[in-house]
Amino acid sequence: MLSAFAALPALPVLFPASALADIAGGPLPSWNDTASKKAITTFVERVTKQGSPDLVPEAERIATFDNDGTLWAEQPIYFQLAFALDRVKVLAEQHPEWKDKEPFASLLKGDLKGALAGGEAAIFQIVTVTHSGMTTVEFEKIAHDWITTAKHPQTRKLYAEMVYQPMLELLAYLRGNGFKTFIVSGGGIDFMRVFANRVYGIPPEQVVGSSGKLDFEMRDGKPILMKLPELNFNDDKAGKPVQIQMHIGRRPIASFGNSDGDLQMLEWAKGGGGVRFALLVHHTDAAREWAYDRNSSIGRLDKALDVAQAEGWTVVDMKNDWKTIFPFGSK
Amino acid sequence: MLSAFAALPALPVLFPASALADIAGGPLPSWNDTASKKAITTFVERVTKQGSPDLVPEAERIATFDNDGTLWAEQPIYFQLAFALDRVKVLAEQHPEWKDKEPFASLLKGDLKGALAGGEAAIFQIVTVTHSGMTTVEFEKIAHDWITTAKHPQTRKLYAEMVYQPMLELLAYLRGNGFKTFIVSGGGIDFMRVFANRVYGIPPEQVVGSSGKLDFEMRDGKPILMKLPELNFNDDKAGKPVQIQMHIGRRPIASFGNSDGDLQMLEWAKGGGGVRFALLVHHTDAAREWAYDRNSSIGRLDKALDVAQAEGWTVVDMKNDWKTIFPFGSK
Repeated sequence: MLSAFAALPALPVLFPASALADIAGGPLPSWNDTASKKAITTFVERVTKQGSPDLVPEAERIATFDNDGTLWAEQPIYFQLAFALDRVKVLAEQHPEWKDKEPFASLLKGDLKGALAGGEAAIFQIVTVTHSGMTTVEFEKIAHDWITTAKHPQTRKLYAEMVYQPMLELLAYLRGNGFKTFIVSGGGIDFMRVFANRVYGIPPEQVVGSSGKLDFEMRDGKPILMKLPELNFNDDKAGKPVQIQMHIGRRPIASFGNSDGDLQMLEWAKGGGGVRFALLVHHTDAAREWAYDRNSSIGRLDKALDVAQAEGWTVVDMKNDWKTIFPFGSK
Repeated sequence: MLSAFAALPALPVLFPASALADIAGGPLPSWNDTASKKAITTFVERVTKQGSPDLVPEAERIATFDNDGTLWAEQPIYFQLAFALDRVKVLAEQHPEWKDKEPFASLLKGDLKGALAGGEAAIFQIVTVTHSGMTTVEFEKIAHDWITTAKHPQTRKLYAEMVYQPMLELLAYLRGNGFKTFIVSGGGIDFMRVFANRVYGIPPEQVVGSSGKLDFEMRDGKPILMKLPELNFNDDKAGKPVQIQMHIGRRPIASFGNSDGDLQMLEWAKGGGGVRFALLVHHTDAAREWAYDRNSSIGRLDKALDVAQAEGWTVVDMKNDWKTIFPFGSK
């Protein structure tokens, strides 16, 4: 085996199913025939059809996707935070001092609400202690072990199965039309890379995310990269166009998100010349998934919804636009 | 036109010539039949031949290349510094205070040695004032105008023509064998992207380099990215493996450099499991190019040469291993 990654047991490969569906009955089979689907296929035809005045060369067909709430679910808490909370419990043995130290004390007593009362600072502390102090290879194994076993508290499905079937089809449809698909997410870059290739068909080099600082060292004559307890980049809001420039170096012609954290990325995509596409996933289906927007602390969609409506961006109404939510059905 | 990039006049496209040569007479036609060429082709066959016990899946065939001194020349000064010096002269009109301020004062008097007497701090100042204070799109145009017109003081060739023909062939040979080729350079990421695609066949998203911080803003209702006068990341030495992890997220199986600044990148590549390849270009040809190593202030090759010799890495002797240096011949 060539890498720790290759040696780990495989995650369910979800995306080829959608690719097959694509061949059998036209693109985007899990999308109802509403305005959203029409907007997507019209855009793709305009920029890809030979002879179209809006044709975009294949190399410039860059599409960027947010992850949490856009490609997979994010309720009742961000899945990566669920991973971090599980890790706190495992690591508590080595940290007796956490018994008297917030946010860990509340967390270890099972009081999640109390632990998160400290807001972003508390979350940052929890993420930092669970995402640093090991090598990148060690972290990859820890995250992979979790993503292949941990189950969502409500659906009892693996978190990696709680991806949106219509979005898997959209990724496959775009790639089938010569697009290069990237994730650009506030989520941790190393965490997402553990499953993005198998679940979304997006390779590590096309995953852009938040990151901690790394330190290169020789340990026993072997090079390692240590994950440090220090933020490198917060890939959210105005940080998204910045990371797109740093990492991709081309402006996306299509961009997909679901929250105010994606607003600037969609503005950046739309701000280029020629035909551009911006889409927001609006969580409107309390029965099959969750319904939330302007007042949610997770995935808040407020200002971006106003801009989308004013600018005529595509807003997916999950309840009416999607036939299926998850590959396994609904919540 | 879809982007400022596409709208600019084309640079000479150099790499397809080498690809054609490849088809006609076997790979690497500008390489003599010495141990270096044999080491390259043996490695490529081991990791790509069906049935080989060392076969590497195509997606994991990642190769990283330094740029200055590895893909193009770097004497008598780094070409990007030549760009910065030319820009100082252009910008001096708007900066009357530079007449009395080093390193600008010496520079404007034509005293390059005096200007660079301030060492790295002086160079950093020169690079900062010439690489910030404009949008990414504005910088792209400035850099492109320069790279398509500015000529090397000794050869009178465009800088973008002073690329190594054997390395162009090597890039094409690796890509022809399923490798994904990346630049990982201490050079500026935005600067290299202006020519890397046309000259090396390496698209913007596969260029990794040093960078300044960026700021996303709306200007007159249009989104822009401003280049700030602040270092974001210095992609040199131990920074190279760090940026490889951040940007690519896979460890290269082959890595190519020419100086001590590349040592950690080559160690990182070699430190993975399975068959790995590391190569240093040693500048040994004073007649056709330049000869320098341990005592050069530019592209110093000292510690990395010791490690390469101790570890049995491939060291290219430009004088004996390369039939041709530049596509146009020699210096």
